[in-house]
Amino acid sequence: MTERPVDVSNPLRDPRDRRLPRIAGPCSLILFGVTGDLAKKKLIPAVYDLANRGLLPPGFALVGFARQDFGTESFSTLIRDAAKDGARTPWSETVWKQLAAGIRFVPGEFDDDEAWERLADTMADLDEQQGTGGNHAFYLSIPPGLFPVVVSQIKKHGLATSAKGWRRVVIEKPFGHDLASAEELNRIVGDVFSSESVFRIDHYLGKETVQNILAFRFANGMFEPIWNSHYVDHVQITMAEDIGIGSRAGYYDSIGAARDVIQNHLLQLMALIAMEEPVSFNARSLRLEKQKILANARPADDLDLHTAQAQYVAGWAGGEKVRGYLEEEGVKPDSRAETYAAIRVDVSTRRWAGVPFYLRTGKRLGRRVTEVAVVFKRAPHQPFSKNDIEELGQNALVMRIQPDEGVTLRFGAKVPGTTMEIRDVNMDFAYGGAFVESSPEAYERLILDVLLGDPPLFPQHQEVELAWKILDPVIEHWRKDGTMDTYQAGTWGPASADEMMARDGRTWRRP
Amino acid sequence: MTERPVDVSNPLRDPRDRRLPRIAGPCSLILFGVTGDLAKKKLIPAVYDLANRGLLPPGFALVGFARQDFGTESFSTLIRDAAKDGARTPWSETVWKQLAAGIRFVPGEFDDDEAWERLADTMADLDEQQGTGGNHAFYLSIPPGLFPVVVSQIKKHGLATSAKGWRRVVIEKPFGHDLASAEELNRIVGDVFSSESVFRIDHYLGKETVQNILAFRFANGMFEPIWNSHYVDHVQITMAEDIGIGSRAGYYDSIGAARDVIQNHLLQLMALIAMEEPVSFNARSLRLEKQKILANARPADDLDLHTAQAQYVAGWAGGEKVRGYLEEEGVKPDSRAETYAAIRVDVSTRRWAGVPFYLRTGKRLGRRVTEVAVVFKRAPHQPFSKNDIEELGQNALVMRIQPDEGVTLRFGAKVPGTTMEIRDVNMDFAYGGAFVESSPEAYERLILDVLLGDPPLFPQHQEVELAWKILDPVIEHWRKDGTMDTYQAGTWGPASADEMMARDGRTWRRP
Repeated sequence: MTERPVDVSNPLRDPRDRRLPRIAGPCSLILFGVTGDLAKKKLIPAVYDLANRGLLPPGFALVGFARQDFGTESFSTLIRDAAKDGARTPWSETVWKQLAAGIRFVPGEFDDDEAWERLADTMADLDEQQGTGGNHAFYLSIPPGLFPVVVSQIKKHGLATSAKGWRRVVIEKPFGHDLASAEELNRIVGDVFSSESVFRIDHYLGKETVQNILAFRFANGMFEPIWNSHYVDHVQITMAEDIGIGSRAGYYDSIGAARDVIQNHLLQLMALIAMEEPVSFNARSLRLEKQKILANARPADDLDLHTAQAQYVAGWAGGEKVRGYLEEEGVKPDSRAETYAAIRVDVSTRRWAGVPFYLRTGKRLGRRVTEVAVVFKRAPHQPFSKNDIEELGQNALVMRIQPDEGVTLRFGAKVPGTTMEIRDVNMDFAYGGAFVESSPEAYERLILDVLLGDPPLFPQHQEVELAWKILDPVIEHWRKDGTMDTYQAGTWGPASADEMMARDGRTWRRP
Repeated sequence: MTERPVDVSNPLRDPRDRRLPRIAGPCSLILFGVTGDLAKKKLIPAVYDLANRGLLPPGFALVGFARQDFGTESFSTLIRDAAKDGARTPWSETVWKQLAAGIRFVPGEFDDDEAWERLADTMADLDEQQGTGGNHAFYLSIPPGLFPVVVSQIKKHGLATSAKGWRRVVIEKPFGHDLASAEELNRIVGDVFSSESVFRIDHYLGKETVQNILAFRFANGMFEPIWNSHYVDHVQITMAEDIGIGSRAGYYDSIGAARDVIQNHLLQLMALIAMEEPVSFNARSLRLEKQKILANARPADDLDLHTAQAQYVAGWAGGEKVRGYLEEEGVKPDSRAETYAAIRVDVSTRRWAGVPFYLRTGKRLGRRVTEVAVVFKRAPHQPFSKNDIEELGQNALVMRIQPDEGVTLRFGAKVPGTTMEIRDVNMDFAYGGAFVESSPEAYERLILDVLLGDPPLFPQHQEVELAWKILDPVIEHWRKDGTMDTYQAGTWGPASADEMMARDGRTWRRP
């Protein structure tokens, strides 16, 4: 990587540009779980990239809290290595030096009061030395079982509020494992932080392509008129992974695909696709509209007919033979955790009644892809001969979330030749090709929003609880009466999922 | 070119394919104007390509009639050279030999009765030797001034009808130069041939991308709901040429851009874009719907405000300095022929009232392009800040007719970054990239349709006359009161055309 000098003192590079980037004020980010995968691969690189883009103030500090006893210097090296490995922007020693000046480490167990006193001292020191001004965000990149102890320590040591600055807490999913546990978690956190100070990270919502759903729907004149049950046949929301569970067996085996992905990412995507136009894009208005959808959504009535769950068995992925789920290291041999989940959700609103939303996710599927496909009804009449349109499917508008970010429109076009034969073709927009601006990583956007106190992209506890209300009956049904299907690794899921669609006269897209 | 053997005896190459190509029955094509540019560059290569694709029967004949005295052999060489130069499919001696067996030449002036008797004998011989079965199509690739003599000779010598086969006549534009002359021409031709036997060639209608307009509109479910005045702001139909008038000065100077292009190509494109769904794609139903549009269309009321005409002056084209129109060879120095014409047409139907159709064409414009752009209204409300959408235009669906055949959708997408800035981007479908089938040339399709007697793509005299009814008042106004504007060669037309759009609060697209 080449060194690109960044003028940190004047990040407003072009004063003629009226759309100024928003820059965080003085503050610190206090990272719990700093040695974890997420911190190393995503959070630390995102902090560096923000600094390099000139979006962090000189008075910024990054504090690590962990049981390992790093010295400040070796901790600094760990941060530097993670930043250098994971950053998407070029490496700059200038930026790094500025960032390094604000790095601190506090060793200790979470239940060790003395360690918390050391953290309190460090925060006070930073306010003085770095000018963080009493503004501190606690980022809990730790298992949810540890939330109660950390949150109560924050309260006990008087760190949850400050007379002179703000205090915020950032939590990562899972936000509970069902409605009851989510309510309990929200109670614990809500006991210490006001709801405006709690930032729940659903990193999918930080993705450019997810935010583009709103731009696409509401900035354009030609899509909204057909965005309803008159013209839409159904919607398919897919998050497919080609990888297995990797080193996450312990976590994954206790939770399964539906709770890991559908409850948060897919139901949030559904809410963005289905919601009415918000009064504005402020957090309150956006959440209101998303909540209206989630409150009106529920799984289709007969759960046997309209859901599918399965575990992968041995197969092929990326040209290699791979194990089945039950053979994975750390998975209980009689595990009932599903690695594939598909459910049909019905949204009972004037706009969407009668339009099923099919949500599916799975590990070890054909390839890694996340997309939302809005599939339109066929034309009410087609003045073509039957032969000419036998290769014509339904029109579809596909928002490609990852990895090939963009939008695809599938429609019928005439095949060259003397007949009127019509065949499906694709029209593509590639996000990467269209803009010179490269997309920031989701975590850059979200961490910056936390530091700015800008909440639109973070789900509030109401949304989390509404999502559990949708999913709980499905999980409960699976636990009691569900049959666990299987699918070969590297395929597109179990036969039961195809049958679930076939019953509705539909098929899954091969994305 | 490599030799590709074509099995002429069995042109149905894959018997599993139920969409069999339609193959002409035994017949001859009698070409008047066989030494002209059109015949050499388009018609003869198209005949060869059809033969090579196995779409002509073994019993096919090609007859030339001209004043030059070719022997049959030197005529055959002329055909061979033209076919070899202009064919789009590979050269095959096998195909050529088969084709050459049916080639004949008849020398003579059009008013020479003896020559016509020779033609009659040749046709009779062919029926016997080649088995053309009395089926003959007269292709009049000659100036319209010669139509009366040729048509009346065909009648006089008893060639217009036959007890045992069909007789057809093919005429090229211009179909008159105003309503009165078109009616006169139709009277002359109609006196000899029944209306089903007259094939008027508008080669634009043979283009795949033009036929795709119908497939696109009526095979898909998602476009027709927004294809009306509720959602469409206006339509722009453009045929721009970068070339000047070349060697066509004599013809062009007496006619001008509006009569050369708008009366036929652009008004036909307008009819296809605007028409209601036909009962079927047979000729009668298609013509009926096109006629309904043309009958309801008229130029916008104040012709001074809603039309523009201009001549190009010296400028630059393709990196070379080029002359102005009045300096072109063969152009009268005080010529009033417009080389650029733009008119606004209003279509008074329930679907289109209030949606202007802007038609423009010109020589020596920025580049060669033909397209139809359906420009949509903005969203009735946009919940974005004014800054965020200042680079957002109107959605547009562009049918690209030539040269980059395809469809483009222009819409707003979020610019990557932390703001909600929205900018116009394009989604593209390229006809060439999507199909392995390569597009036949328009003339292949049209000649085959003539031989098959398949009339949907040929405008009938009613359409021709309705189109003149739209254009006549404009031409008349220009003749009497019009000011002739100018534009520099290589630019996108005169200021008056931009002002004409600006008056309506709109701008021309830069295609």
